[in-house]
Amino acid sequence: MSNTWEIGNQLVEWCKQGQNIEAVNNLYAENCISVEAQGNEMMPQQMEGLEAIRGKNEWWANNNEVLKAEVNGPFPHENRFAVNFNYEVKNKQSGEIQQLNEVGLYTVENGKIIREEFFYPTGN
Amino acid sequence: MSNTWEIGNQLVEWCKQGQNIEAVNNLYAENCISVEAQGNEMMPQQMEGLEAIRGKNEWWANNNEVLKAEVNGPFPHENRFAVNFNYEVKNKQSGEIQQLNEVGLYTVENGKIIREEFFYPTGN
Repeated sequence: MSNTWEIGNQLVEWCKQGQNIEAVNNLYAENCISVEAQGNEMMPQQMEGLEAIRGKNEWWANNNEVLKAEVNGPFPHENRFAVNFNYEVKNKQSGEIQQLNEVGLYTVENGKIIREEFFYPTGN
Repeated sequence: MSNTWEIGNQLVEWCKQGQNIEAVNNLYAENCISVEAQGNEMMPQQMEGLEAIRGKNEWWANNNEVLKAEVNGPFPHENRFAVNFNYEVKNKQSGEIQQLNEVGLYTVENGKIIREEFFYPTGN
């Protein structure tokens, strides 16, 4: 799998099935960088490397239950693609239900995702 | 108007009203760059400057009738924001009706949009 469109399509398929970790394991470069619109005390804004990104995904999955997931895309542009995520999520501790609507922007180099950036309102 | 979120919100409002040209006139920098996922003989992939971008918008509006417009966003990330456009469009010449689902990515500097990039499948 080598082009942006194919990688984007595969990522979207896995995310639709809730198998986001498969995308990380198979499509991401070892030194991939992950950047949130905003960090918090549990999750720094920027993380580097597959291990850190796997940890972030696990932390998120351990703390949130996905009630509904709509994943639209990929929307390619040269070596990048965007994905629109529309999740209904329940915080496992508080029980609070939240709508998460965000855009992920992915950069591909040498057939692997080397950067993911998430776009959403931060309340700033 | 100076921050990414405000500029994104204003752009989304105008686009929802079909007043995209107002966004160009009021929110874009004089030397703004506009980049499509793919160019064609009528529309180069990259255009530079407000005049060229206005011309592109006029050309598009002269050739297409928007039947439905759904505009979601803005999705901010530092000095950039994304917008998801979902248009039903009729080509005025051929009468062909098309669904256009794409993501726009905007970069803000000094209170103005200096770059817009459009993400969509190109058939390549």
